[in-house]
Amino acid sequence: ANNSGSNKHLTEFLDEMRSDQIREHLRKFTRLPHLAGTEQNLKYAEQIKKEWQEFGLDSVEMVPYDVLLSYPNKTQPNYISIVDHLGNEVFNTSLAEPVPEGYEGVSNIVPPYSAFSAKGQPEGDLVYVNYGRTEDFFQLEREMKINVTGKIVIVRYGKIFRGNKVKNAMLAGAKGIIMFSDPADYWATGVQVDPYPDGWNLPGGGAQRGNVLNLNGAGDPLTPGYPAKEYTYRFDLVEGVGLPKIPVHPIGFHDAIRLLENMGGQIPPNSWKGALNVSYRIGPGFTDDFKSQKVRMNIHTNNQVTRIYNVIGRIRGSLEPDRYVILGGHRDAWVFGGIDPMSGAAVVHETVRSAGRLLSKGWRPRRTIIFASWDAEEFGLLGSTEWAEDNAKLLQERAVAYINADSAIEGMYTLRVDCTPSLHTLVYDITKQIASPEEGEEGVSLYESWHKRDNWTNDRNAPRISKLGSGSDFEAYFIRLGIASGRARYTKNKKTEKYSSYPVYHSVYETFEIVDKFYDASFKRLRAVAQVRGALIFHLACSELLPLDVMEYADSLRKYAQSIAQLAQRHQDEMETYMVSFDSLFSAGENFTVAAKGFHERLQTVNRLRVMNDQLMYLERAFIDPLGLPGRPFYRHVIFAPSSHNKYAGESFPGIYDALFDIENSADPEKSWDEVKRQISIAAFTVHAAAMTIRETDTT
Amino acid sequence: ANNSGSNKHLTEFLDEMRSDQIREHLRKFTRLPHLAGTEQNLKYAEQIKKEWQEFGLDSVEMVPYDVLLSYPNKTQPNYISIVDHLGNEVFNTSLAEPVPEGYEGVSNIVPPYSAFSAKGQPEGDLVYVNYGRTEDFFQLEREMKINVTGKIVIVRYGKIFRGNKVKNAMLAGAKGIIMFSDPADYWATGVQVDPYPDGWNLPGGGAQRGNVLNLNGAGDPLTPGYPAKEYTYRFDLVEGVGLPKIPVHPIGFHDAIRLLENMGGQIPPNSWKGALNVSYRIGPGFTDDFKSQKVRMNIHTNNQVTRIYNVIGRIRGSLEPDRYVILGGHRDAWVFGGIDPMSGAAVVHETVRSAGRLLSKGWRPRRTIIFASWDAEEFGLLGSTEWAEDNAKLLQERAVAYINADSAIEGMYTLRVDCTPSLHTLVYDITKQIASPEEGEEGVSLYESWHKRDNWTNDRNAPRISKLGSGSDFEAYFIRLGIASGRARYTKNKKTEKYSSYPVYHSVYETFEIVDKFYDASFKRLRAVAQVRGALIFHLACSELLPLDVMEYADSLRKYAQSIAQLAQRHQDEMETYMVSFDSLFSAGENFTVAAKGFHERLQTVNRLRVMNDQLMYLERAFIDPLGLPGRPFYRHVIFAPSSHNKYAGESFPGIYDALFDIENSADPEKSWDEVKRQISIAAFTVHAAAMTIRETDTT
Repeated sequence: ANNSGSNKHLTEFLDEMRSDQIREHLRKFTRLPHLAGTEQNLKYAEQIKKEWQEFGLDSVEMVPYDVLLSYPNKTQPNYISIVDHLGNEVFNTSLAEPVPEGYEGVSNIVPPYSAFSAKGQPEGDLVYVNYGRTEDFFQLEREMKINVTGKIVIVRYGKIFRGNKVKNAMLAGAKGIIMFSDPADYWATGVQVDPYPDGWNLPGGGAQRGNVLNLNGAGDPLTPGYPAKEYTYRFDLVEGVGLPKIPVHPIGFHDAIRLLENMGGQIPPNSWKGALNVSYRIGPGFTDDFKSQKVRMNIHTNNQVTRIYNVIGRIRGSLEPDRYVILGGHRDAWVFGGIDPMSGAAVVHETVRSAGRLLSKGWRPRRTIIFASWDAEEFGLLGSTEWAEDNAKLLQERAVAYINADSAIEGMYTLRVDCTPSLHTLVYDITKQIASPEEGEEGVSLYESWHKRDNWTNDRNAPRISKLGSGSDFEAYFIRLGIASGRARYTKNKKTEKYSSYPVYHSVYETFEIVDKFYDASFKRLRAVAQVRGALIFHLACSELLPLDVMEYADSLRKYAQSIAQLAQRHQDEMETYMVSFDSLFSAGENFTVAAKGFHERLQTVNRLRVMNDQLMYLERAFIDPLGLPGRPFYRHVIFAPSSHNKYAGESFPGIYDALFDIENSADPEKSWDEVKRQISIAAFTVHAAAMTIRETDTT
Repeated sequence: ANNSGSNKHLTEFLDEMRSDQIREHLRKFTRLPHLAGTEQNLKYAEQIKKEWQEFGLDSVEMVPYDVLLSYPNKTQPNYISIVDHLGNEVFNTSLAEPVPEGYEGVSNIVPPYSAFSAKGQPEGDLVYVNYGRTEDFFQLEREMKINVTGKIVIVRYGKIFRGNKVKNAMLAGAKGIIMFSDPADYWATGVQVDPYPDGWNLPGGGAQRGNVLNLNGAGDPLTPGYPAKEYTYRFDLVEGVGLPKIPVHPIGFHDAIRLLENMGGQIPPNSWKGALNVSYRIGPGFTDDFKSQKVRMNIHTNNQVTRIYNVIGRIRGSLEPDRYVILGGHRDAWVFGGIDPMSGAAVVHETVRSAGRLLSKGWRPRRTIIFASWDAEEFGLLGSTEWAEDNAKLLQERAVAYINADSAIEGMYTLRVDCTPSLHTLVYDITKQIASPEEGEEGVSLYESWHKRDNWTNDRNAPRISKLGSGSDFEAYFIRLGIASGRARYTKNKKTEKYSSYPVYHSVYETFEIVDKFYDASFKRLRAVAQVRGALIFHLACSELLPLDVMEYADSLRKYAQSIAQLAQRHQDEMETYMVSFDSLFSAGENFTVAAKGFHERLQTVNRLRVMNDQLMYLERAFIDPLGLPGRPFYRHVIFAPSSHNKYAGESFPGIYDALFDIENSADPEKSWDEVKRQISIAAFTVHAAAMTIRETDTT
């Protein structure tokens, strides 16, 4: 087993991954809807377990939790009405999306809904608030002088996580929120693309499902911090974490036109206008002719504690069985999950199959590899977070890295990687060994193909790598536990393709066919993603020396420090008044760099492999502050957190960032600047402490 | 270096420790007062650093922090008056203790005071509240129907930590609190012992200094969670952790007689009566003749951010330099520190000297040994806690064990050990190899001598070992970070000697002479303590397999579960009404026992030393809950915490205990029982999770 990490084995591992197999896996697991908590999703779990066993994993187990989920009431559908002055419903939004061809007889397609919406039938005037972002509400209140207290807001989907829109609406005093998919945000631009099934654009009857929680990493809303097992104490619903207090509902753009077309009030700025043939007036309420009409939401969605199932498979490490490399992605889907998540699950499945083939030939990785098929990701990353809570004590001592495997494709352009800085070098190295999946790029590496399409110009002459935000299952592993993490998928050209995520995201139109016909007919792109994810776990599990790069972390820390200090410079006068300085943070960054260089030099004469591997493994852990970020106890990574304004975006030095953001709205600037200083001090301390962990052990 | 842990080396190490050397160390470091933050305490630090270097440690460094300390105002002394109706002071308590013979010319003896007392001159009637315990205040309020709002309470020292008395007084509404040393609690009983200098009893003019914080493990009150360095953000004083809001002052019993002798009000129960020739009436206020007299406190103590210095010495481990065994004790003293802490510091000094001798002969421990001379322990464990905060990330990955070295002697009877269950076996093993220091016990082991005097009858036929509470520097290491910890000292016969701690505790009479003449004239007892502490770190640093016993932890967990469940049984009816069950905790205990047995069996065929040592080391860590105990974020050990009612006492399953305690005073029993259930669930989860960490790594 000594050469378990050889190039020969890696090549075998990657070559074994086959496009036709990935296609077959995707086909198999997208025939039926498999929402979290449903029988069908349990069946798929059992099937995955059985197949992983057949592929040859050392063990595969089902791990159940009982978590809070949310479903529409089957007998009282959710919809939105326009009601006249007598209270008659003169228009109702559709109760379901038109079912795509080939799936007509399928039952258990859950209609579009906002999971965890409050129940209720609020009635009132509409106010249009663009994307419902913090800045949109600021503009509404400060420039347009509109107060939404007691109103129902309507916002378009896109730009930020929908839960943040709902939170903003609640904070502004709205009593309900409607979210619609505007073609400006869910249609391809530039090129002519038909709506599904003739193309991959969103039909007017399609709508985006999704949860509207603000969990901030808590996992199951009723058991924050602890796994949701039989004996676990559960909070009452009213104490649950992150549950919205107002009704929320999503609609497609056909229905949105009807709600928007008669709106009155101010004409919006151009940046607030979508692509529908309506004026996008702000409201409140309808124009003169329709003034007496109101909007009523009818929401009857139920919260329900429900059993979910993760599938956990293992390959025992030969030499370091107590070091874990994890490849995890979710299995639950809003409907068929053609893209989200099964394009990713199919890739994991193929990775397991290929690893099983190698095992059968006598190979065994140095470290333990754990494969996970998470449940209930769509309901707030619940399966992955509960398992992280359940295994936190093992993971914090033993986990080397976590690689996420959600949707493997969201566009047809090039690779997209988000990861911790210490994985940068590994990502570059492996993509040089993998072939481009693009037509006409025979002999071109994935690295070259990616570099050509997305150069990280501002940072370096190499393909762009982004910070991790949230919105997928790596969150608990990276942001709460401090395990080096990364994700990779195929993506769109974000310079020219301006839509959010991808047009049919979370709609019934996410089918096998949309991948098979439009996104990746050859399945070569998915194969390339499988090879990237696979090569990551192979190197992490098999290299004698862990392939983590402390110099990259040092470089990133210095850049993040520069960038947050620059942001503060907007308030230079106040910084002088309140004596705010970033020097301690810069100095911590320099100190870290010295330590990182020293570490790098010692690697040349490495003689204590175990010691240095532990230093590499625990470096990410050193950025965890057990006290958490202000108000977000489960976001504990001092360097990275999801943005408070958009869960999808990753913020560096989030504590400082949030404190700076508050400056603009503060009634007590001295106190607010005090909080900035406190956050700088915590950040500087954390970077210093992390530097200690990579110093020579003899001298620390 | 392979036989660095051999019996021969251990014998050499223990034999090298000499009584005359310990005497000399004690003599040297008790000549002058060395309060934390003073020049003299820095000088001793420098001297210790120099001598540790000469003894041969690989490195010794001074580590400064800037923490909040508290000193009397030099120009405005603290005292308490009886004032007549005109406001004239008709009696004032003494401003200082009579200086003992031989120390007459010494300057910088700080007078008795309560560190961190609020400033102020409250005036009012006295109420006597026995020891000021929770149950004393309950009795006062519920049975005697006395409300202390706006009163000054006077309580006797003893039974519980003085900070808890102050907290109880504040919660009851008192505007000041006076603490006195009653001979019932600070004089030897049964035997005739003279007051110092003719014996070791407390003179009537002696008083007990001490801090009155309620830090709950926060360390420096202004920098909770982070080390108090130059760049560290400091809270304002009003936001500081654990600072009392009322004036507090300690007095001796001569002064106490004057305050108590004319008190009126109810006659107290016998259990409230001390040994003074006064009635111990409760008050409020004085008897008829003296009714118009009031008591006034005059407190001018200042809080002040002050530099303190830890001395940190190291012996680099030969094979596992990144595994740390720590022997730490404080150096700062209220005055001379003859007992507290220098009897402990002298022992550490001798341990370092002996280790240095071995080093010079070519020996080197397998793991790194860290010796620490902590500063500002008397001000709230500040030096040790700041260093723990500074090094938390290293310590949580690398620390094997922490052995505390505060006062090595508090009585003349036998050994006293408090430690984590996993150290039980090691403590028994080593005390069998060490000779009894008692006269007439030649050839008798310390174990036998100890066993004869303090059999742990309820638990087993072996010497008693107690749970760790708090009140010394192990706290941050054990209760916050989850590092296996223990302490050992020579103690009194607690069956017959009823005084709290020892009579001259924290008075000016803690001199070199009190040890040299009364406590340990031969210095054999201190030598035995040195050998116990030394043998502990020797085995922990040198044994190939870590000498930690998981079966002992399993046994203790089951006993603690039984005992907390029994406590709950007092409320059997309510437990049925609210459906409270301890089954999940019992079942977790059984599960842990199965895992511990499995671990023990695998030890017989140990082939993965590093893996199993990590499991042993991290077991204690597995009991840490990052969310902390309710309201006590820095007390994070789910199995052990200092009692909420007495910092000195260790409570097992403290979360459950506190929730049960609240039941008695709850306005909403359903909610209170809910909290009990939540705490049981957290405890059960934690024990399950800890069990996972000692399972075979291949299968978890």
